[in-house]
Amino acid sequence: MLELAPVLNHLDNELDRSLGRLFDLLAIPSISTDPAFAKDVRSAAAWLAKDLHSIGFEASVRETAGHPMVVAHHEGEGPHVLFYGHYDVQPVDPLPLWESDPFSPEVREVEPGRKVITGRGSSDDKGQLMTFIEACRAYKAVHGKLPCRISILLEGEEESGSPSLRPFLEANAEELKADFALVCDTTMWDRETPAICVGLRGLVGEEVTVKAADRDLHSGFFGGAAANPIRVLASVLAAMHDEDGRVTIPGFYDGVEETPPHILESWKALGSTPENVLGPIGLSRPAGEKGRGILELIWARPTAEFNGITGGYTGEGFKTVIPAQASAKISFRLVHNQDPAKIREAFRAFVGERIPEDCSVEFAPHGGSPAIQLSYDSPLVKTAQEVLSQEWGRPAVAIAMGGSIPIVGDFQKVLGMESLLVGFGLADDRIHSPNEKYELNSFHKGQRSWARILAAFAEGTI
Amino acid sequence: MLELAPVLNHLDNELDRSLGRLFDLLAIPSISTDPAFAKDVRSAAAWLAKDLHSIGFEASVRETAGHPMVVAHHEGEGPHVLFYGHYDVQPVDPLPLWESDPFSPEVREVEPGRKVITGRGSSDDKGQLMTFIEACRAYKAVHGKLPCRISILLEGEEESGSPSLRPFLEANAEELKADFALVCDTTMWDRETPAICVGLRGLVGEEVTVKAADRDLHSGFFGGAAANPIRVLASVLAAMHDEDGRVTIPGFYDGVEETPPHILESWKALGSTPENVLGPIGLSRPAGEKGRGILELIWARPTAEFNGITGGYTGEGFKTVIPAQASAKISFRLVHNQDPAKIREAFRAFVGERIPEDCSVEFAPHGGSPAIQLSYDSPLVKTAQEVLSQEWGRPAVAIAMGGSIPIVGDFQKVLGMESLLVGFGLADDRIHSPNEKYELNSFHKGQRSWARILAAFAEGTI
Repeated sequence: MLELAPVLNHLDNELDRSLGRLFDLLAIPSISTDPAFAKDVRSAAAWLAKDLHSIGFEASVRETAGHPMVVAHHEGEGPHVLFYGHYDVQPVDPLPLWESDPFSPEVREVEPGRKVITGRGSSDDKGQLMTFIEACRAYKAVHGKLPCRISILLEGEEESGSPSLRPFLEANAEELKADFALVCDTTMWDRETPAICVGLRGLVGEEVTVKAADRDLHSGFFGGAAANPIRVLASVLAAMHDEDGRVTIPGFYDGVEETPPHILESWKALGSTPENVLGPIGLSRPAGEKGRGILELIWARPTAEFNGITGGYTGEGFKTVIPAQASAKISFRLVHNQDPAKIREAFRAFVGERIPEDCSVEFAPHGGSPAIQLSYDSPLVKTAQEVLSQEWGRPAVAIAMGGSIPIVGDFQKVLGMESLLVGFGLADDRIHSPNEKYELNSFHKGQRSWARILAAFAEGTI
Repeated sequence: MLELAPVLNHLDNELDRSLGRLFDLLAIPSISTDPAFAKDVRSAAAWLAKDLHSIGFEASVRETAGHPMVVAHHEGEGPHVLFYGHYDVQPVDPLPLWESDPFSPEVREVEPGRKVITGRGSSDDKGQLMTFIEACRAYKAVHGKLPCRISILLEGEEESGSPSLRPFLEANAEELKADFALVCDTTMWDRETPAICVGLRGLVGEEVTVKAADRDLHSGFFGGAAANPIRVLASVLAAMHDEDGRVTIPGFYDGVEETPPHILESWKALGSTPENVLGPIGLSRPAGEKGRGILELIWARPTAEFNGITGGYTGEGFKTVIPAQASAKISFRLVHNQDPAKIREAFRAFVGERIPEDCSVEFAPHGGSPAIQLSYDSPLVKTAQEVLSQEWGRPAVAIAMGGSIPIVGDFQKVLGMESLLVGFGLADDRIHSPNEKYELNSFHKGQRSWARILAAFAEGTI
């Protein structure tokens, strides 16, 4: 068993040097979505492979149809874990809004005793992935080995839709399969409270177009006689929720489970209220299912949201037209075991039943991924909760997230592997926006957290 | 008495040249609702004033708070008539659906022996108003004078709610008051059957905007918690009709009268069925109040129509946004004694009651005019029926119309003047839609019809 205390000490002493390494990585503008930066994306991959090689990993830059992957392996005696992060970053525009160069990172004291690391990718996801690499480096420096067998997969296309990820996993399944995965791309609950993400909502998108007359009509000539597709569409959309905010599509809630009461209690204890969640965006009342807490609505309940609608004349002034068609973009956030294909089918049937005989309807699908739900009581989660609570001096909370992280589903489907989602970002890190930052405390205690988590794995507590 | 036959001959011989003049006018994109075309609207006014001046009218372009009026006067011995038309046109979007440039008019043979004039405004209302001007031109060319004293008022804001019309009539009542008005902005019953319009629905326009959060939101983070303004708007619109197609706004039917049975019988005799009215536009079933005839629905019943709706992301692909706002353009067609102000007020109250507490709603009014109902038995109507029957070789019918022509009410209220509504448009002219057209036959026999009508007036038969 490798002793933990000297590793933590080493991380404390090495903080400045680990910052230097992060700065070198942050200085590379690895913007994956813009072909002009393809060379920089490749430089970041090479930098990481070299850094991992320097601490004893067998590391390589691996080609894909798009940007390369970095894959690294290191022997060890404990369980085999696969760590995932991504080294590509979002574009930086609008550049004038940045207070300092996005690729010249700095440490800045934003209030007494609180420092942040500035720069694009500082939080999403270079700062996060380096917390794990620094923990490995410390083990090697102190003990000459790692507490577990560790593989690392670093992606260069996460910010541009991950087109090569699934094929790469499939082509290299044997090599990448581990006992479980560690994903470091999520947030803490707040600056003091660590969190483990155990639920991610899935997504089904549908565009629906209602067609009536074969042309736009003058409402004077045909109003009162001709079918109006906006009226038909509005009726369909209005029928999709009942008065209690529940989705009325038959079978929609199939596969939805109630969140365990003790989890709901732990969420309630976080102190989120409709006021403090919705207040900052100018709202105050939850619009979803009645009788559910605000966090439960966002984390653990499915939704039907209308993302866009258009039909008829929408310019300045007025045009008394009865349009030929009207359409809406609708997305369903899924939880637990809701089946994306069934939801799509049920939605289409629901709409079809409400289309008058001489109108027609067309559908266009947009994406479809099931939710990810880890057990709140899995040993993996329990262990991480204990260890994070020790490091941060506060109980770590098991949270869910409203959005999707497709990699977790891919690990499950392609590699048959569970993921542990631990991250040290914060909701106010301005990822994808100007002036991205990462708390220096997140960077430091994040490293220490991973050192503890690896130690716990080695102790066989899971 | 000025002989009619040579005037009719002249019109026959001059048809090509009259077409050339119409084409010049149609080429001017005088779209009144879009400020980008303000200069073009003014060009069309100048073109008309110059043309009227060229045939001996004292003509001028007259300023208003919006687009200008064209006013012209010509002495004559018979009764004093005021002719009304409008020279502004509807927007042309969606442009890709036009088979030829909306502002490059053409004559096209659509079936053997049947030609149409293409272009925005060809039917509504430039082609129509030019039938009257050409009749005047022919009288001047043949006889050197007109059979009546004629004033002409041409409006440039008819397609954008006529905001300046009422003030202009009030400010120039003395100058514009005549024995009666002639309005050429209506249709024939069919291609062979001339019609006189005795009933016109009124119009109330409203734009309603529902606002929720103070910014667009990510539906992953806020879906299920934040109010969605598209959902709120859809619910409001869906609630506006009951299952029988009746409008549910309280008080909406106040002032609506049942049409006398003998009029309903005469309409039934015209042979209109849902199939032959709706079939040509790709529909088959009346979407309005159940249990009413198709002509009654269009001519004598009030409606609530949705003319446009927009909110959220409406581009290609998908964006999982919860938008900050959504809005709709709604128009009410009024009949008989419905009060536009009360309808507007009742609508706003109806919407207000359905807006969740932390959303807000804004309204923008667009026009408001009561319905017009003329007597089916007035001498003006009887004379026109006789003369039109001579020209077209078929009995002219007294019909009602679904659309509004607010000017008729204003002539009645401000100038104490009755109107005769005669027009040569057709229901399938696609006014307000792509590929607007005007029958060449309408343009030609319309000119001849006006020549006959003016002759009848001069003979003192009314």
